[in-house]
Amino acid sequence: MNFHWHRRIVHLHHPFNISRSRDSRPEKEILYVTCEHEGQMGWGEVAPDRYYGQTLESAERALAQLSQLPVTDPYDMENVFDWLWRRMPDQSATIAAIDSALHDLVGKLLGVPVWKLLGLDAGKVPPTSFTIGLDELPVMVQKVREAGDYPILKVKVGTDRDEAILGTIRELAPDKPLRVDANCGWDSATVVEQCRRLVRFDLEFIEQPTPAGDHDALKDLRGLGIAPIIADESCVGFEDVLRCAGHFDGINIKLCKCGGLRQGLKMIHVARAAGLKVMLGCMVESSVGIAAAAQLAPLADWIDLDGHLLLADDPFEGIGGAAGRLTLNARPGLGVAPIGDE
Amino acid sequence: MNFHWHRRIVHLHHPFNISRSRDSRPEKEILYVTCEHEGQMGWGEVAPDRYYGQTLESAERALAQLSQLPVTDPYDMENVFDWLWRRMPDQSATIAAIDSALHDLVGKLLGVPVWKLLGLDAGKVPPTSFTIGLDELPVMVQKVREAGDYPILKVKVGTDRDEAILGTIRELAPDKPLRVDANCGWDSATVVEQCRRLVRFDLEFIEQPTPAGDHDALKDLRGLGIAPIIADESCVGFEDVLRCAGHFDGINIKLCKCGGLRQGLKMIHVARAAGLKVMLGCMVESSVGIAAAAQLAPLADWIDLDGHLLLADDPFEGIGGAAGRLTLNARPGLGVAPIGDE
Repeated sequence: MNFHWHRRIVHLHHPFNISRSRDSRPEKEILYVTCEHEGQMGWGEVAPDRYYGQTLESAERALAQLSQLPVTDPYDMENVFDWLWRRMPDQSATIAAIDSALHDLVGKLLGVPVWKLLGLDAGKVPPTSFTIGLDELPVMVQKVREAGDYPILKVKVGTDRDEAILGTIRELAPDKPLRVDANCGWDSATVVEQCRRLVRFDLEFIEQPTPAGDHDALKDLRGLGIAPIIADESCVGFEDVLRCAGHFDGINIKLCKCGGLRQGLKMIHVARAAGLKVMLGCMVESSVGIAAAAQLAPLADWIDLDGHLLLADDPFEGIGGAAGRLTLNARPGLGVAPIGDE
Repeated sequence: MNFHWHRRIVHLHHPFNISRSRDSRPEKEILYVTCEHEGQMGWGEVAPDRYYGQTLESAERALAQLSQLPVTDPYDMENVFDWLWRRMPDQSATIAAIDSALHDLVGKLLGVPVWKLLGLDAGKVPPTSFTIGLDELPVMVQKVREAGDYPILKVKVGTDRDEAILGTIRELAPDKPLRVDANCGWDSATVVEQCRRLVRFDLEFIEQPTPAGDHDALKDLRGLGIAPIIADESCVGFEDVLRCAGHFDGINIKLCKCGGLRQGLKMIHVARAAGLKVMLGCMVESSVGIAAAAQLAPLADWIDLDGHLLLADDPFEGIGGAAGRLTLNARPGLGVAPIGDE
């Protein structure tokens, strides 16, 4: 197995902001990882999040360790990941990119799509929501208008103007399911009051209302029965799933947090055993990263896999997404291919 | 996909008895299931247990429903098993045989062993214990002598002569790890006292000391610190894993109880999330049934996959087992093949 990696700059339709981090840059640097073996090449994408202490630089330092990987067979995944978690336990986004590259590679070696190797039904991918990042209200209105084809909107909240934002968006999209994501932005002391005022917007679910680990207010919040409460920052990896049971109604699995689709699949099984709903989420990522997560989509209740739709110049194609419809195609591996000279 | 099934009589080296069921017959009827697709054939074996309300007859009635299976692609396992669990929720052993046949078939279609498709390391199969069924003491002594090559013994207990049995066996095998399995045979009121008297035999673990669901005495039993307490009859399927957490130290996964290796794999992930040890067990089965369970063995702490070793005329070969060493070979699928004209 030969691993290589390189950076690539892509551009966003709009700068992307959430309650706990503002980023006004219109472009984003992507780190791709490839794995070659017996004439086939698998692709992965590192989506590091500073919130979890991960950056492109920390990812590149981690990837440099792959020269010492003692496993030479791409099928031998349990050993690969045992080694990776011991060597780089804090670099889940890098491990996820390697997981993606290996699954893509093995699928191509066998001539079979990954979702099919997992025994799943490509026809059972739920529609994805389209995310409306935080911005000045007129810009958010513009984004909602541009998202006219998307059947479900996920609105970033966690500010002191959430009611105004949701009021405006609900008016523009009176019939669409609306999900909200506070990204830890609400205070534990006021969250119940805060959410009580959002009842009238008829929300599909509320994601990560309070800071990770701050679960005290969630019981009262769930008691209101407004909408299911989903853990994102509170559910990073495999060990967190059972910790979320009893506090949340569901979990948002992101491959960059948990270390890839092999690990994400395990989390889905644990979530089901604990009676938790399953959502699949993403970062701003190109079609490579989204395709890896999408392989698990037939097992999810909700998906929010729109990272590639936020890009103006996604270097890959294959996963679709128009009008919220992701495609698991019949190509071997992840089903994505570079456009042009990537 | 074309499914067929047929019975076949095999013979045991010794009749096999446990505390809650005595069976003096020297032979056993096996029900094989095959699935043919695109020139390949996958094998499964039904191992029904009357304790769970399953018989060869109930299995055959369930298999007759396969003519209505709306899925035609062997890769489409999630849909196959959704359908099967809805149609025959009480026939887990039949579902396990179909799961085995489909995994064997898909492995053969792809030209890859199942353990490799699962990303596992064939070199990490733990040694299996060899089971000494209940009998008159001289017969049990004879069985222990015949099991001289096996490094670990699992002794069936749950009688009023357990001390005598274990004293004799410990004398014959002073250095071997000894596991005991009471098959629900001890009374909740006396189990702590009972087990206290077994401390001196240095047990590796104690399996299912009390009746399923009767967990009251387990806290005190675990408090003694004699050995890990493992759930068997208390842990039938996927839904039982988290119910066992807090009461037991580990679970014994048997494919015939849980519905196959796809389901068993999910249970392993849930068990790990809950901090439970994992054991893989079996019934008296030929190499087909054992091979299906063995695919998961690299993920187990302990295995007790000796069902085929109790047979004098196993109709299949491929899984080994001499001196407690099972083999996951490099053949496509489950790695087993009929001997002669089976």
